[in-house]
Amino acid sequence: MPVIRSEYNPVVKTADVKPSRPDFKVLGAFNAAVATYGDETILLLRVAEAPISEREDELLTPKLNEATGEVEVVRVSKDDPRYSFADSRFVAENGKMVMLTSMSHLRVARSKDGYHFTVEDTPAVFPQTALEAWGVEDPRITLIGDKYYITYSAASVRGVGVGLAETSDFRTFKRHGVMMAPENKDVMLFPEKIGGRYYALTRPVPHSFGAPEMWIAESPDLLHWGNHRFLMGLRPGAWDGGRMGGGAVPIRTDRGWLALYHGADAKHRYCMGAVLLDLEDPGKVVARSTRPFMEPEADYELNGFFGGVVFSCGALLIGDTVRMYYGAADEVMAVADIPLAEVFDTLSYEKPLA
Amino acid sequence: MPVIRSEYNPVVKTADVKPSRPDFKVLGAFNAAVATYGDETILLLRVAEAPISEREDELLTPKLNEATGEVEVVRVSKDDPRYSFADSRFVAENGKMVMLTSMSHLRVARSKDGYHFTVEDTPAVFPQTALEAWGVEDPRITLIGDKYYITYSAASVRGVGVGLAETSDFRTFKRHGVMMAPENKDVMLFPEKIGGRYYALTRPVPHSFGAPEMWIAESPDLLHWGNHRFLMGLRPGAWDGGRMGGGAVPIRTDRGWLALYHGADAKHRYCMGAVLLDLEDPGKVVARSTRPFMEPEADYELNGFFGGVVFSCGALLIGDTVRMYYGAADEVMAVADIPLAEVFDTLSYEKPLA
Repeated sequence: MPVIRSEYNPVVKTADVKPSRPDFKVLGAFNAAVATYGDETILLLRVAEAPISEREDELLTPKLNEATGEVEVVRVSKDDPRYSFADSRFVAENGKMVMLTSMSHLRVARSKDGYHFTVEDTPAVFPQTALEAWGVEDPRITLIGDKYYITYSAASVRGVGVGLAETSDFRTFKRHGVMMAPENKDVMLFPEKIGGRYYALTRPVPHSFGAPEMWIAESPDLLHWGNHRFLMGLRPGAWDGGRMGGGAVPIRTDRGWLALYHGADAKHRYCMGAVLLDLEDPGKVVARSTRPFMEPEADYELNGFFGGVVFSCGALLIGDTVRMYYGAADEVMAVADIPLAEVFDTLSYEKPLA
Repeated sequence: MPVIRSEYNPVVKTADVKPSRPDFKVLGAFNAAVATYGDETILLLRVAEAPISEREDELLTPKLNEATGEVEVVRVSKDDPRYSFADSRFVAENGKMVMLTSMSHLRVARSKDGYHFTVEDTPAVFPQTALEAWGVEDPRITLIGDKYYITYSAASVRGVGVGLAETSDFRTFKRHGVMMAPENKDVMLFPEKIGGRYYALTRPVPHSFGAPEMWIAESPDLLHWGNHRFLMGLRPGAWDGGRMGGGAVPIRTDRGWLALYHGADAKHRYCMGAVLLDLEDPGKVVARSTRPFMEPEADYELNGFFGGVVFSCGALLIGDTVRMYYGAADEVMAVADIPLAEVFDTLSYEKPLA
């Protein structure tokens, strides 16, 4: 495959990241948003941490105490009959997730060459409100005018909604609350107004019926969103038949808006494909990948916190090459160059596409 | 209890409603929005219909064909091993709802005295788009300026989102698409701007974790919504410990915004209670009912399509009396007068409220 993985991969590893406090360990530095700022490539990493436990018979779970603004550690006995620990990512009670075993924040990493990153010592966007008490995850950055807008997943006992923040310098960040109610994830803003309106790709997750699929919404001001339309859905049996959602922020090309998205099959193998959206009406699907342009193959993609995953939250178009940054195995960050022609080559213009 | 049910209850029955086509039967005329228009009381009924089946071994399920704009009837053999028919409201495949057994539209009924209604012969708001293909349900009407805004549930294979429409005369209706993505229901607009912004009560239903609980959102223009905040949640063991959601459009009182809401316990018994919200910041809960002010007790509330349900989508404040219109047993419409003092008497100002 003409995907060229960087020889420096993984470009950020957990060992490169200092935990936010000494009694925590870093489980993953992955699913980063990407931006170009001055002469730097910025990664806004999702850093997942957990309290260090020294006892086999207990689990320490972290969450924000909104009243104090501090992260508190809840001790749970593994013998407690109320709880199930079958999935290492969370604690369940009566079949419902009631605590996460890790908590994520967002951290800036900087690079001059796009491959060698220096990770800052302290968090950039840390859980701040009750609706972020279980963590902030999977950011995307869109430069609009001279401001960088950051969408991210805000997790709490109330579900996963979409948080919005902005920055001009990647040093101070202004928060704009929850822009979409739970459950919604993988939301990314288009980099310019189209027909006078801002657009976002969204990924609502309905409960009673329906599936986690991709939608599009409009806004006059980036803060308030409406005219939600269904964009495209799961294709049973295909590479994106199990799960799907937006990946990188859409890139303008002469064929249309190119949005790289993730899809997983029934076996939870996460690959990257693309969808081409109409330049004038991005709610119209022009073409869609019948096969992924990238699949988990390298060791750091196949093995890690959750193996068999390539998951991009951001890419840069450099000439005719897509430089895609991506989380590998829910643990580290990697980068690959893919010729734009190869991405286009996976697209089918046949109907029905959704 | 000082709830005075009308002697004319139920004020609209299924027999009062002509089906939208001769091969359909009306299963319910319930969960109506209410408005005052000129000298009339208007009910905007949810009319649930199903194709008349003459064979025991098959089920006929209705849905909109978006291409033709016509409702089509899908024949399903009850012997088909792919499907489960355990719940009479839907057909399931692999544990997921794949068809509803009825389809709802909205219908106008008019009354001079508020008790005797004439139901129009034809639908007012009928499923029109792919996102409404399974029906439009549970409307609420808010008069803002000289326009009546209607929020309703838009159901389709993509989930249940929130549709928005407006009318000035209850004869022609203008549609505004989906204002909130799935899953969200029981959304109602406040009748005036507060601090320069419109507000809505919402009821997102998260999937991965979290529960169906009440939130509040803001808008500059009624079309686009943001700053979603959690308002109040389930109280395990209480009358509203199983399910909850907004009911009637909030009413301004001197103590605060009074919002009647529905709650159900673990046994799916739907009652009505109230929450009082701060007049200046309706995102602040001032007080909340520790007991319902109305419970299903009358025969038409205890027995019907789904028995044991009182569910209001609209109420009028007449002097010191709340005249509440409500769906009873998911089948008929009824009305009751409740002294405002009695509603207030159920409220507790103690913390924690959520």
